[in-house]
Amino acid sequence: MSDRVKRFILPESEIPTKWYNIQADMVNKPMPPINPKTKEPLKPEDLFPIFAEELCRQELDQENSWIDIPEEVREKYKYYRSTPLVRAYGLEEALGTPAHIYFKNESVSPVGSHKLNSALPQAYYCKQQGVTNVTTETGAGQWGAALSYAAKVFGIEAAVYQVKISYEQKPYRRSIMQTFGAQVTPSPSMSTRAGKDILTKYPNHQGSLGTAISEAIELAMNTPNCKYTLGSVLSHVSLHQTIIGLEAEKQMAMAGEYPDMVIACFGGGSNFGGIAFPFMRHNILEGKTTEFIAAEPASCPKLTRGVFQYDFGDEAGYTPLLPMFTLGHNFRPANIHAGGLRYHGAGVIVSQLLKDGLMRAVDIKQLDSFDAGMLFARAEGIIPAPESCHAIAATIQEALKCKETGEEKVILFNLSGHGLIDMTAYDQYIAGNLQNYEVTDEDVQKNISELEKII
Amino acid sequence: MSDRVKRFILPESEIPTKWYNIQADMVNKPMPPINPKTKEPLKPEDLFPIFAEELCRQELDQENSWIDIPEEVREKYKYYRSTPLVRAYGLEEALGTPAHIYFKNESVSPVGSHKLNSALPQAYYCKQQGVTNVTTETGAGQWGAALSYAAKVFGIEAAVYQVKISYEQKPYRRSIMQTFGAQVTPSPSMSTRAGKDILTKYPNHQGSLGTAISEAIELAMNTPNCKYTLGSVLSHVSLHQTIIGLEAEKQMAMAGEYPDMVIACFGGGSNFGGIAFPFMRHNILEGKTTEFIAAEPASCPKLTRGVFQYDFGDEAGYTPLLPMFTLGHNFRPANIHAGGLRYHGAGVIVSQLLKDGLMRAVDIKQLDSFDAGMLFARAEGIIPAPESCHAIAATIQEALKCKETGEEKVILFNLSGHGLIDMTAYDQYIAGNLQNYEVTDEDVQKNISELEKII
Repeated sequence: MSDRVKRFILPESEIPTKWYNIQADMVNKPMPPINPKTKEPLKPEDLFPIFAEELCRQELDQENSWIDIPEEVREKYKYYRSTPLVRAYGLEEALGTPAHIYFKNESVSPVGSHKLNSALPQAYYCKQQGVTNVTTETGAGQWGAALSYAAKVFGIEAAVYQVKISYEQKPYRRSIMQTFGAQVTPSPSMSTRAGKDILTKYPNHQGSLGTAISEAIELAMNTPNCKYTLGSVLSHVSLHQTIIGLEAEKQMAMAGEYPDMVIACFGGGSNFGGIAFPFMRHNILEGKTTEFIAAEPASCPKLTRGVFQYDFGDEAGYTPLLPMFTLGHNFRPANIHAGGLRYHGAGVIVSQLLKDGLMRAVDIKQLDSFDAGMLFARAEGIIPAPESCHAIAATIQEALKCKETGEEKVILFNLSGHGLIDMTAYDQYIAGNLQNYEVTDEDVQKNISELEKII
Repeated sequence: MSDRVKRFILPESEIPTKWYNIQADMVNKPMPPINPKTKEPLKPEDLFPIFAEELCRQELDQENSWIDIPEEVREKYKYYRSTPLVRAYGLEEALGTPAHIYFKNESVSPVGSHKLNSALPQAYYCKQQGVTNVTTETGAGQWGAALSYAAKVFGIEAAVYQVKISYEQKPYRRSIMQTFGAQVTPSPSMSTRAGKDILTKYPNHQGSLGTAISEAIELAMNTPNCKYTLGSVLSHVSLHQTIIGLEAEKQMAMAGEYPDMVIACFGGGSNFGGIAFPFMRHNILEGKTTEFIAAEPASCPKLTRGVFQYDFGDEAGYTPLLPMFTLGHNFRPANIHAGGLRYHGAGVIVSQLLKDGLMRAVDIKQLDSFDAGMLFARAEGIIPAPESCHAIAATIQEALKCKETGEEKVILFNLSGHGLIDMTAYDQYIAGNLQNYEVTDEDVQKNISELEKII
């Protein structure tokens, strides 16, 4: 027993030096984003007003399978990478499953989640281009904290719009952003036209990622030498996140195993893509048969109940049109504690992969997610973020199937973040004050039917 | 630049398998704890009613330099150990110092601090002895969280008295303890005689570690099959914490360096002893000249302004008499945010070492500690616990001296925990609402003069 290895960590010399761009290897490429005015496919230059130029090129790159990680970014990755690959002996024993469960522990990053993996390169490319200010949105605050720190690292200023419900439920995340020197505004706010419009229509609007994105883009467009950054959904974000799966691939080899299943929670798709795409390339290129499972909240079910359709990435319609599985950009998700999963659509790569049957999705109810999180916390000692609880719940479902069949499947999931800043949610769960939220077919249909006008 | 190593991590096979007991190597042994009734030196059996028996033997062991870590504990250490030894390049650059600054990052433990290093063996030895319930006190909540998790790991129940000021300032820590299944009571409480006595005398008492200890001991004494556990001060606790320094020793060797200075914050002494003692043995046995610096809060200055004297470890006088540097067990420390440092005395080993000039102490004001914490957070990405900020402040002082003299000293400090649950304190600091607390000579003298009655 004492010889069994619990955690696999790479020496710094083994940390990957390139990100993996799955777009280059996909048989059916993602359909192009479309300029809503011209209805023409987007070129990188169309995005230059919003994002750093290198990020625009990465966004639409369907040719290069591997993208060099700049040395300055690699230097900062070393502050917390490699993150450990952990064999979840405690969870396996608690479940009595023959499955071998591994998790990639992204919660050990300085800001507590995987988000820093993309915040660092985004801030770096902005700085390199002479940008002095960046804006962004944040849901639970994980991305906002990451960008705030990354901006500080590269010496630029950050302004963050935080979804109001999270701003109020998670005041510590605001404080973390401020500790790193960022300016934080609850969204919807009266500081932008997009925010004013929404507050006029819905005075008690609790905010959503879609709205906060509109506000952050508007601020970036109206501020000199300022760019917008995004923590999920876009292809360049999941590109940066592939550092997770590329490390995990080497670490699984250290463990002498290869995953039969890869599982991650799903908001816009960045942590899912990050852990899944490097393994998926072996399915695409070498015929491996690993299953990929995205775990989304039952109250925001774009993958399991949405439609594949061009839609805006934000509520106000500032973004290009993206071909995505969506509930409609006006879908107003319930106030679940997994704020990072309250988003109406899925990134274009994942949407194409789901359409093509290269992955599947499951929906998880809020109470089931916290059941799973509590079990995990007590078995492994790490209190997971409410978002990550969805991945754990899906993992437990699969591990219990193995218990029935006796199969020793190898399951790998991404622990995208810790829940230490989300203890209010656990408090409510322990007190029996949390609930599930139902989404009716009518809710889904209402928003989706409006999409037909778009393109 | 990209070849320089940021973090040094041991393979699991290199994690130490024994703790280091400095008592065996000390030339002047600590004076014995004394039974307050008989005035006789304490024997292990005298402590059996309070602590697990193996812990009592470890407490008074002055013969064995090395104590085996039980396999069951080693297996649980692997859930987070080795913790990284980190070269603080970011901090060095921010200071412009030629010093080489390293920190041992104990904040990566599941519960966010070094406290788990002793909670696991304490819970294990209790379980092994057939104990079903454990009690303890906690200041900031770091120890309480660690014991709650450790009790869950070994299948026993935990009841925690949390110092009231921390219970109110840090509600998340209470939630963390409850997530791990513990029962949490703010102290002073009306549930014990000790608590009632103090609340009768001082109705607005904000609590202190000394009071919470009294309450936890009383509950343990009055509950069948229940033992008390302590997170600091006692010699067996710093014994367990030597895993920190023993790992650091191997990791410094990986870095090709050896510390000129070892620095840690100081409450009861467990994280200080944990990182210092393994290096100090080379001073004692081989004549090395490393300096050891304990950083205590200016508002609770037992090492810099207290007296060396027999005193009780708790407010009510339930503990044996300990030969310690103390401000008197009735000293009521100011409500600083570093709750874990609000304790009137120092452990017997450290007290003897300080008396013999083998180490020294510095006092740090609250605002200086947060200045240091903010600088560190922005330079290294990790928001430190208010307690750890004291070690950082002392480190910065020494690093700036090196900047003046041009010396490339190697400084190692212990980052005992992260501050993610302490964001209220950072909020107040950023808003300019934090203050320093002065301790007058009268305050000190008043309590110390009462000690003369004791022995």
